[in-house]
Amino acid sequence: MFEAAELGRKVTREEFDAIAPQLRTELLEVQRRLREADFPVIIVFGGVDGAGKNETANLLNEWMDPRWTVTRAYSRPSDEESDRPPFWRFWRDLPSKGKIGMFLSSWYHAPLLDRVHGQISVAEMDERLIRINHFEKALADDGALVIKFWMHLSKKAQKKRLKKLEDDPLTAWQVTPVDWEHWKMYDKFVGAAERLIMQTSKGHALWHIVEGADARYRYSVVLNTLKDAITAHLDRREAQKKVAAELKKPKTAKKPAPEILTKQPSILSSLDMTQNLDGDDYNQKLQEQRARLSTLHRRAKDKGVSTVLVFEGWDAAGKGGTIRRLTNALNARDYQVIPIAAPTEEERAQHYLWRFWRHLSRAGRVTIFDRSWYGRVLVERVEGFCTDDAWQRAYGEINDFEEQIVEAGHVLCKFWLHITPEEQLARFNQRSEIEYKQWKLTDEDWRNREKWGAYETAVNHMVEQTSTQIAPWTLVEANSKTWARVKVLRTVCDALEAGLKKSK
Amino acid sequence: MFEAAELGRKVTREEFDAIAPQLRTELLEVQRRLREADFPVIIVFGGVDGAGKNETANLLNEWMDPRWTVTRAYSRPSDEESDRPPFWRFWRDLPSKGKIGMFLSSWYHAPLLDRVHGQISVAEMDERLIRINHFEKALADDGALVIKFWMHLSKKAQKKRLKKLEDDPLTAWQVTPVDWEHWKMYDKFVGAAERLIMQTSKGHALWHIVEGADARYRYSVVLNTLKDAITAHLDRREAQKKVAAELKKPKTAKKPAPEILTKQPSILSSLDMTQNLDGDDYNQKLQEQRARLSTLHRRAKDKGVSTVLVFEGWDAAGKGGTIRRLTNALNARDYQVIPIAAPTEEERAQHYLWRFWRHLSRAGRVTIFDRSWYGRVLVERVEGFCTDDAWQRAYGEINDFEEQIVEAGHVLCKFWLHITPEEQLARFNQRSEIEYKQWKLTDEDWRNREKWGAYETAVNHMVEQTSTQIAPWTLVEANSKTWARVKVLRTVCDALEAGLKKSK
Repeated sequence: MFEAAELGRKVTREEFDAIAPQLRTELLEVQRRLREADFPVIIVFGGVDGAGKNETANLLNEWMDPRWTVTRAYSRPSDEESDRPPFWRFWRDLPSKGKIGMFLSSWYHAPLLDRVHGQISVAEMDERLIRINHFEKALADDGALVIKFWMHLSKKAQKKRLKKLEDDPLTAWQVTPVDWEHWKMYDKFVGAAERLIMQTSKGHALWHIVEGADARYRYSVVLNTLKDAITAHLDRREAQKKVAAELKKPKTAKKPAPEILTKQPSILSSLDMTQNLDGDDYNQKLQEQRARLSTLHRRAKDKGVSTVLVFEGWDAAGKGGTIRRLTNALNARDYQVIPIAAPTEEERAQHYLWRFWRHLSRAGRVTIFDRSWYGRVLVERVEGFCTDDAWQRAYGEINDFEEQIVEAGHVLCKFWLHITPEEQLARFNQRSEIEYKQWKLTDEDWRNREKWGAYETAVNHMVEQTSTQIAPWTLVEANSKTWARVKVLRTVCDALEAGLKKSK
Repeated sequence: MFEAAELGRKVTREEFDAIAPQLRTELLEVQRRLREADFPVIIVFGGVDGAGKNETANLLNEWMDPRWTVTRAYSRPSDEESDRPPFWRFWRDLPSKGKIGMFLSSWYHAPLLDRVHGQISVAEMDERLIRINHFEKALADDGALVIKFWMHLSKKAQKKRLKKLEDDPLTAWQVTPVDWEHWKMYDKFVGAAERLIMQTSKGHALWHIVEGADARYRYSVVLNTLKDAITAHLDRREAQKKVAAELKKPKTAKKPAPEILTKQPSILSSLDMTQNLDGDDYNQKLQEQRARLSTLHRRAKDKGVSTVLVFEGWDAAGKGGTIRRLTNALNARDYQVIPIAAPTEEERAQHYLWRFWRHLSRAGRVTIFDRSWYGRVLVERVEGFCTDDAWQRAYGEINDFEEQIVEAGHVLCKFWLHITPEEQLARFNQRSEIEYKQWKLTDEDWRNREKWGAYETAVNHMVEQTSTQIAPWTLVEANSKTWARVKVLRTVCDALEAGLKKSK
């Protein structure tokens, strides 16, 4: 794999100076076009130490307009970062649409070094590469251009390079004993790198292997490849937009599903909606569960076990009230309620999962999502706010996201608060009558109500595709608010208890 | 995940009879449209025993035009099949463009059952699911519609169903002790199935979970889903074709790479082309290696170790002559030379790898490809016969294919026979002068020669992306035919020797 990057390719100073001005102009022009585009560029630099990853990123920063680029390098995770799933820090740093992000010591760093040092097996490295593939695929599916450069040096060239740096008093500090240690493990490193490249070089995220020995050759290749790749992607996106437009007016009009299918019971219609709790019973059970939650949460806080709660449900199903009963048992500094409405401008410029990743909170905290990432497969699907492809692949993206939350040791509960259409109507009417509740009722609520059937189908699919053993849905019979509140509280407590046991 | 498929959904006979005629007409109409299309439909039926996988496939066969459907079910591999990599039998059976293939006990069968019986760990099942993902992704990338139905029954419903079959003397034979054994492992089965679905439900190959308890409900869902999916895919393909056309005339004209990059040495220019072997030396070494090959091959044949040899190289580089020197040492019944020219009509109607899979031969045989699957990243890339996306993703598809060959215990060698442009010119001239060699020289050879630089770049990328530790390229200095022949023979012998050692 690397033979082709040990050929001694060189560009002289004169040659480079002759092409530099034009190349630079072209890059700036490409960057200008990119600013108007609806995708970010994600550049990953990987490779052998001393092969010029940093210098190349530096040159790119120097040549391009720095207002539209971000560069990130990662070392040991900070406290802030260790509290979250490992990919949190990469999500946080993703460039928004129109920008270029350069990543050094990126998501490839830890799996590769852990393998080289023998801390993980080949199979374990592969598992981590799958996660990387999912990450890059999700970004690429969303339109991002993912471009990866692997800077290579032969063993001999690496030695020469380290020596040269050492011999110059101005650069000697750059060479540490760790560098020489790595050099001794060169063969292991290159073997693991080959597997890494094989497993993660995909059509949508290709590795470009670059001979790194000569700086000017390396610059010329990277800059030229980058310019061509962005240009081609700009064209590709424009063409893709035309397809999307095309698919909105399909040749064959979509026929509604036959009635014998739409009239079938759904996962919701199978719920026993008569369940109820009356006054005294409710008060007692609520107090019990709140006391339990309070105790459990204090233990979770001590142990750094975070809790993520997701609330979805029909309009007027009582999400807000239930959440308040929950947070009442907690200390205000320990929880955060995230109401999910239409995304902000900043959020729209990112992958749809970005705004949920950013809200994952520090160890021991409780994060409550009042509506959530499931909007993609509910409202966005039903209202046609995203393409069919987009919501269909969202199931996999969501499962992957939740798996990372659970693997990081967090407790995750997902609630669908269900009420019947009749109960909803009664609550709507009540709201419109009580003055201080009128603000809660909007025209949109009435419009959504008309699409009850379509939402029910979407909920059914959602449960089918995302209710898993590691992240099950809890369907809550919420015609009775009292019943619903106690059921939610009890479920959270049970999950916390189980999570605390696991974390021992 | 399966809660939503245990709701007791039912369609009465009257209801079904009322929609059946129209549904059937629509399906036939969709099938008619599909026949003109440039993609196949691949339907996978998985699920719980007794949930109606077979009956549903039967109904589809009854309702549709059987000339354009194929149905395949798999049990223990035949002798023929065991000799090849496990996926050989699935590739062999893939429907061609315009057809519908239905797969029962498909590629999911073995990983799932092996997991349920505890023969593989979760991580091992995951590894096998990755292979499945690659397989389905390659087909979908090529345009195929992959649609998967998971037929579900609750534990109770499965028991009821098995009992019912047993009680009827006409169907009792269908229930075996194995079925009851499986029923006892229901929970394990469903747990493994959940993971399987989560790992393999992708945007391009979604699992549809179908409640299987009521036959008419199940039929209605499957037939309706299928009809809608094919219709949508027909529209999507048409839109995609428009993009492809759009991308052929990019907004920004592709600029050629700057000369400072194109003039760089390539993996080929670094070869020492003066290497040679003269008469006596050649004869002796050739005889030695041929004798060695003959002995090694006999051992390989006894042990059932197959050999796959790939020959690529410039026109007139001496592939034919080298192959003849090799086959002379073998028994004609033991080897097969596959000359790869333009694909046949039958082959064009399949994924480009299909025609190579089909030629993998039985245990202990030698299969020699005179040109190969690398055409995708060489001639098809350079001549623009396929899209950029297609040849870029081919590297991964090829690595996956070769990994399967090597994992099956076959010996794989890949040769690039290199000559200099001057040597090629001399050989062309010689061919045009010697009458009995004139047929070998075509106008195309001269045209290819003009694109030497583009081919050299493509060869460099090919080696970079596909020369791996498990399947390395051997670059052969072939200006001297004698040197080339001995080097190839020796490399094959060394590889065979190593392969035989591993197979012990």
